[in-house]
Amino acid sequence: MPLLTDIGTLVTCAASGGQGDITPVRDAALAWEGGRIRWVGALKDLPAEYHAWDRESAAGQLVVPGLVDCHTHLAFGGWRTEEFSQRILGHSYLDIAAAGGGILSTVRKTRAASGEELGSRAAAHLAAMARLGVTTVEAKSGYGLTLDDELRLLQVYRDLGTGPQRIVPTLLAAHTVPPEYRGRGDAYVDLVCEQIIPEAARRGLARFCDVFVEEKSFSVEQGRRVLVAGKRHGLRPKIHADQITSGGGAELAAEVGAASADHLEQVSNQGIERMREAGVVAVTLPFASLYLHVAPVRARRLIEAGVAVAVATDFNPGSAPSYHLPFAMTLACTLQRMTPAESLKGAAIIAARAVGLEDEVGSLESGKSADFAVIEAESVDQWLYHLRDNACVRTVTQGREIWRA
Amino acid sequence: MPLLTDIGTLVTCAASGGQGDITPVRDAALAWEGGRIRWVGALKDLPAEYHAWDRESAAGQLVVPGLVDCHTHLAFGGWRTEEFSQRILGHSYLDIAAAGGGILSTVRKTRAASGEELGSRAAAHLAAMARLGVTTVEAKSGYGLTLDDELRLLQVYRDLGTGPQRIVPTLLAAHTVPPEYRGRGDAYVDLVCEQIIPEAARRGLARFCDVFVEEKSFSVEQGRRVLVAGKRHGLRPKIHADQITSGGGAELAAEVGAASADHLEQVSNQGIERMREAGVVAVTLPFASLYLHVAPVRARRLIEAGVAVAVATDFNPGSAPSYHLPFAMTLACTLQRMTPAESLKGAAIIAARAVGLEDEVGSLESGKSADFAVIEAESVDQWLYHLRDNACVRTVTQGREIWRA
Repeated sequence: MPLLTDIGTLVTCAASGGQGDITPVRDAALAWEGGRIRWVGALKDLPAEYHAWDRESAAGQLVVPGLVDCHTHLAFGGWRTEEFSQRILGHSYLDIAAAGGGILSTVRKTRAASGEELGSRAAAHLAAMARLGVTTVEAKSGYGLTLDDELRLLQVYRDLGTGPQRIVPTLLAAHTVPPEYRGRGDAYVDLVCEQIIPEAARRGLARFCDVFVEEKSFSVEQGRRVLVAGKRHGLRPKIHADQITSGGGAELAAEVGAASADHLEQVSNQGIERMREAGVVAVTLPFASLYLHVAPVRARRLIEAGVAVAVATDFNPGSAPSYHLPFAMTLACTLQRMTPAESLKGAAIIAARAVGLEDEVGSLESGKSADFAVIEAESVDQWLYHLRDNACVRTVTQGREIWRA
Repeated sequence: MPLLTDIGTLVTCAASGGQGDITPVRDAALAWEGGRIRWVGALKDLPAEYHAWDRESAAGQLVVPGLVDCHTHLAFGGWRTEEFSQRILGHSYLDIAAAGGGILSTVRKTRAASGEELGSRAAAHLAAMARLGVTTVEAKSGYGLTLDDELRLLQVYRDLGTGPQRIVPTLLAAHTVPPEYRGRGDAYVDLVCEQIIPEAARRGLARFCDVFVEEKSFSVEQGRRVLVAGKRHGLRPKIHADQITSGGGAELAAEVGAASADHLEQVSNQGIERMREAGVVAVTLPFASLYLHVAPVRARRLIEAGVAVAVATDFNPGSAPSYHLPFAMTLACTLQRMTPAESLKGAAIIAARAVGLEDEVGSLESGKSADFAVIEAESVDQWLYHLRDNACVRTVTQGREIWRA
């Protein structure tokens, strides 16, 4: 049974304490067996029963929990490269969408792609994420927008779930109104609530149900219908809230008991207060702020108000074309003014809570899944400050090595 | 003699045209011999004399000029990790400097480090930069601030110049006033002008002379003295201008005929106009804006005014702890609203102009040095938009391969 020693610093990221409490342990050891952590602590405290286990060296490096990317749109057709320059030169995200670009452009390309193509592209992205230390990935549908196409995307995620990383599938049929339903948003919401949600749930293809509440997408009332329907079929709510306009999305998240409200660049003070009361995780997405040229989310305000703040990539072909979670974590520090420890906890145990896996992943504690990353850095601060292409030198998930530099 | 074919797109980045004109060539070929480019163009136009050359395949990828990082503080002792959280939590760069942190903290660590240690750390950073496609690196002194310590840093750069990358050494003795001269800035400027500049020039250790004109560093008048003294000894002027406060640095750059004015977050409209008239390159440093939480430079205003805008990392242990030039180029797009083509030209031929090497590197043209990078992307737009750890799969400088994925 493996015992990792020579760990310069290990951070457990246990849930207890504040957002910045990551519980560092110097000169640590980590023992695991059958994919589960058996023991973690300072090497000098290692119980005798582990002394004879097979030692592996971490060469004095930093060990962190396997990272959890709790908000991605992992499988999609094509790219939207051309929108990058359009936005730089002043076209807004909503303008581009109104002109047939944006999400609907990806919907067209996704519908036209084979399931095999969607799966192999997503698998390549997952492999790249493994090299960055990411072991759990939430993945949303939402580029199909028909019963068949939404189920097809969720099936891609089901198949990817046999790969090395844990995939958490989220049904986002209510991503935007598809062209066939233009001007008939309520009728599309009927389809989502009466057919897509029940069928996805019946087949066990989704764990969460998400909706994009935004001026040009769905109203709070429509969002409520979608999330309530999801709950009725056993899907926990999530919500794209208050990204471009402040529209009561955070308040709705609290009302329906969502696991998370995501984006939140424009969240109101009242929304923050409701989220705190209801224990909704705030999922912040710094790439989306950066690529859409919008003011970053007020993460300090959220943290000071007592809301747990996660950090994710929002990986998608339009507004966040990067799966580089550590880079997003550095941007959470620089753009959102989160400390490196707060940022890491936001991509570990708090992100795990946002995907309902806080008892399984996101921290290094006895009994949890043996998911960890070895980082070439002296400390979490040094890791996220000294921005490199990749500082992760080893990734292990469920006790199995999936990357070594 | 090598002939690179199967190039999906090659961008020459020739100096002619506007900032966004990178001159793409589809289905291109590139021939070089003895470290020099002999021919570049569309494969269908390849003259008969090159048909028998040894063909290498670029596998349909993008080929760009070897990148030029035209502003770095490459050799330094220690790091300043602790300042990252301090700034995130609201301490300003100038406050931290006033409390003994900032540049002077690195000066202490650099003076205490051996030349061998400084050299081996810098060499490791250069090797990482090679993997990102960077083939020319400007490197400043400025963490010594005594005659001996400044010369020692320049000697480190001279020794690194025998390595694979071109090093352009800049004397930045006037980086800040050292503790021994606290309150006696003019006396330190005397030392710089009368001893450090002449000695560095006499030994042929520097090509440029730089000064940090800023409220807490040197006045415009002091900056003028330093740059005029440098010119008298054959060192071309450069200037750290208008970073944190608007202090007439850009105007001084124009007055003394500087090759570049760098930073410019707070540049005045008059400063922009003077730079345009004098042909001074604007070197923009998006990492520094990001890490110091300051508003980014108005790059579009500069470009529209007819100033050539370069993009560099500013790699240093405090305000820009990253040597990842392609990340900086993406940030130039998102934060500074430069198009991907403008950003690339800013890290190629315009950066070459900022270091006086525009006849040697920075574009792929017959007669120039065979410095190029092969990038896994369909286009420059796709490369800089789809942010990955590293998209560079091969780097060649002076005809020699220094990196292959």
